[in-house]
Amino acid sequence: MAASVETTIARSAQMQPLATSHLFEASEPLLLDCGQSLSPYAIAYQTYGTLNAAKSNAILICHALTGDQHVANVHPITGKNGWWETLVGPGKPIDTTRFFVICSNILGGCLGSTGPASINPATGKAWGLDFPVITIGDMVDAQVRLIDHLGIAQLFSVVGGSMGGMQVLEWAARHKERVLTAIPIATAAWHSSQNIAFHEVGRQAVMADPDWAKGAYLAAGVVPRRGLAVARMAAHITYLSEKALQQKFGRNLQDRAKRSFSFNADFQVESYLRHQGSSFVDRFDANSYLYITRAMDYFDLAAEHGDVLANAFRGTTTRFCVVSFTSDWLYPTAESKEIVQALNAVAANVSFVEIDSDKGHDAFLLDEPEMFDCVRGFINAAAAKIGIGKQAKA
Amino acid sequence: MAASVETTIARSAQMQPLATSHLFEASEPLLLDCGQSLSPYAIAYQTYGTLNAAKSNAILICHALTGDQHVANVHPITGKNGWWETLVGPGKPIDTTRFFVICSNILGGCLGSTGPASINPATGKAWGLDFPVITIGDMVDAQVRLIDHLGIAQLFSVVGGSMGGMQVLEWAARHKERVLTAIPIATAAWHSSQNIAFHEVGRQAVMADPDWAKGAYLAAGVVPRRGLAVARMAAHITYLSEKALQQKFGRNLQDRAKRSFSFNADFQVESYLRHQGSSFVDRFDANSYLYITRAMDYFDLAAEHGDVLANAFRGTTTRFCVVSFTSDWLYPTAESKEIVQALNAVAANVSFVEIDSDKGHDAFLLDEPEMFDCVRGFINAAAAKIGIGKQAKA
Repeated sequence: MAASVETTIARSAQMQPLATSHLFEASEPLLLDCGQSLSPYAIAYQTYGTLNAAKSNAILICHALTGDQHVANVHPITGKNGWWETLVGPGKPIDTTRFFVICSNILGGCLGSTGPASINPATGKAWGLDFPVITIGDMVDAQVRLIDHLGIAQLFSVVGGSMGGMQVLEWAARHKERVLTAIPIATAAWHSSQNIAFHEVGRQAVMADPDWAKGAYLAAGVVPRRGLAVARMAAHITYLSEKALQQKFGRNLQDRAKRSFSFNADFQVESYLRHQGSSFVDRFDANSYLYITRAMDYFDLAAEHGDVLANAFRGTTTRFCVVSFTSDWLYPTAESKEIVQALNAVAANVSFVEIDSDKGHDAFLLDEPEMFDCVRGFINAAAAKIGIGKQAKA
Repeated sequence: MAASVETTIARSAQMQPLATSHLFEASEPLLLDCGQSLSPYAIAYQTYGTLNAAKSNAILICHALTGDQHVANVHPITGKNGWWETLVGPGKPIDTTRFFVICSNILGGCLGSTGPASINPATGKAWGLDFPVITIGDMVDAQVRLIDHLGIAQLFSVVGGSMGGMQVLEWAARHKERVLTAIPIATAAWHSSQNIAFHEVGRQAVMADPDWAKGAYLAAGVVPRRGLAVARMAAHITYLSEKALQQKFGRNLQDRAKRSFSFNADFQVESYLRHQGSSFVDRFDANSYLYITRAMDYFDLAAEHGDVLANAFRGTTTRFCVVSFTSDWLYPTAESKEIVQALNAVAANVSFVEIDSDKGHDAFLLDEPEMFDCVRGFINAAAAKIGIGKQAKA
């Protein structure tokens, strides 16, 4: 049993109420990979477009580490456009005049879904570090309950970049019959040693902040702003490419003609990073950051299937479209190719494109016409096969 | 006037006395690039081998960001071998039976040379943030005074990797007539936007630590251990390559068979990084870290010479040997090639080798036989030209 209510979601005890998202409040417990059961839990989500009578036109968008459900509407905290409005909307490659698009805040997130900043019913206080450590599979299983609740037997597509792509792969592996097409972008089937290392730096930066208060900062009435900002700064470098940084900032000075011979933000790139750090703290919960990075580190689809990645996809009838970017050093093309090889090994239907871009990992969020064309073409072809009407002109 | 004394150096008010290094105590002020004069200041240094009668066999080794003067002897704090014993010593490519090798702790350092942890004579307290912001050029100018003091008109060679290589380039640019040969390894003539970004993350991590105490932690009797450890962890990732991390650690778990579903150091790479962070704090001063990274960020040899790098070397008679490593993403080969092109533009004598290695930037400190052969060959050829005797058998 589950109840869906249009509600105003309080993000945490200290944050302002958000604009309305739908809220799916699950009444059945969720059995997590760690062995614990989570109950109750809720998943906040946005929808765009209309579900058709056959319920065959639903597309689930999975967000990345610091993303949320606001994929194609103005963000209630930042006031910025939806994070993937270039890809999702009326006439866009994922066309909301034809498809019913769902995007939910992940389990463990901090924008309405249950996470470490939510109230633990056993104590009446924020979960903090008592929240169970979750996995990408757990995030997907919670999404499955949401899709059940919406009465959708099979998703036309599951689409996501970065950690969103990990969820796409997990959907395709754990819930084969419910995924007609899958579009994992700029992602990998496992988290590399270097990626774990960068995440660990971020976690240690948060935990080094005395205002983290051993995870109980909400109860203590503080926020580990400095630590979380440092974590974001370090991570942000990995989202770009050296070339992108050099082209965007080079060694340009910020608001000055000469070096100040001080520790001020002399260089534009320093000023930019400091802004990325401080603005992130205003919209993200520090413990959520710990939990989500941990889930990514734990992700290893082959390990879940006898150390053979192809086993994850054995028997699949899903059609895959795998996308990578040449300058993405966080999830380099070689890791997308491993996915493609595993799919080939089980004779799955897969197309793969490596897109030439100098924008680094963040390319998947940016204006990349080749990615748009690729997604549009793949979706239109699959839609034609099952008789979903033609796309409106862009 | 200057005095040289064999002395026991106190590294900072809080640290144990070090084993003996030579100490050059300058009596003349040093005019810094920022416009300030520094006086008094001291440079701690080690020597190996014997200066010949002609004073023609002196080689200066320049250390990197977290290095020090203990290039070829057991380190007085860590008890580890000298940091470049693979390259420097009896029978080694830089053979201390033939050459008089000098290695000094840089100005701004924390192992005996004057830096922010030293006592400011004006206040009787540690300099802290009152220490002037220095440049690579300032470090080199202080070394010049040391070389003057040792009575050496021309160095047979100046050799260094990473920030040591920046010093080599600055020596060759500022003091052409005093450098017979120069060996810049795994370095660049300017610090890229991405490298500035990583340094800024490190500085912000230090400054975010309340125990940094706005730079006055020595007076406050504390040490910003957590912040400095995070800074070191982030930097350390950049010294390796993704492949090196994957080969060394992969996704191997540390002392456990299964994931712990916690924020413990489940993965070996996490445990390794935490160790790198915590052990670094025992041997390095946080403010020195700020000042030295700043000097590296400010380094831009072309900007010092009308934005034309070749101008830095115009009129040089120095012989150069430039070395890079294929997997070094901190100072990629392209940046070494810029140096070579600038040298070619002024018809300088330069040889260049890119060494195939998967060990990343740290390769310059590791067992890289091709680098040893290259340095040995280059030095032997130059030594033969000026009649320094043959190398003993390795």
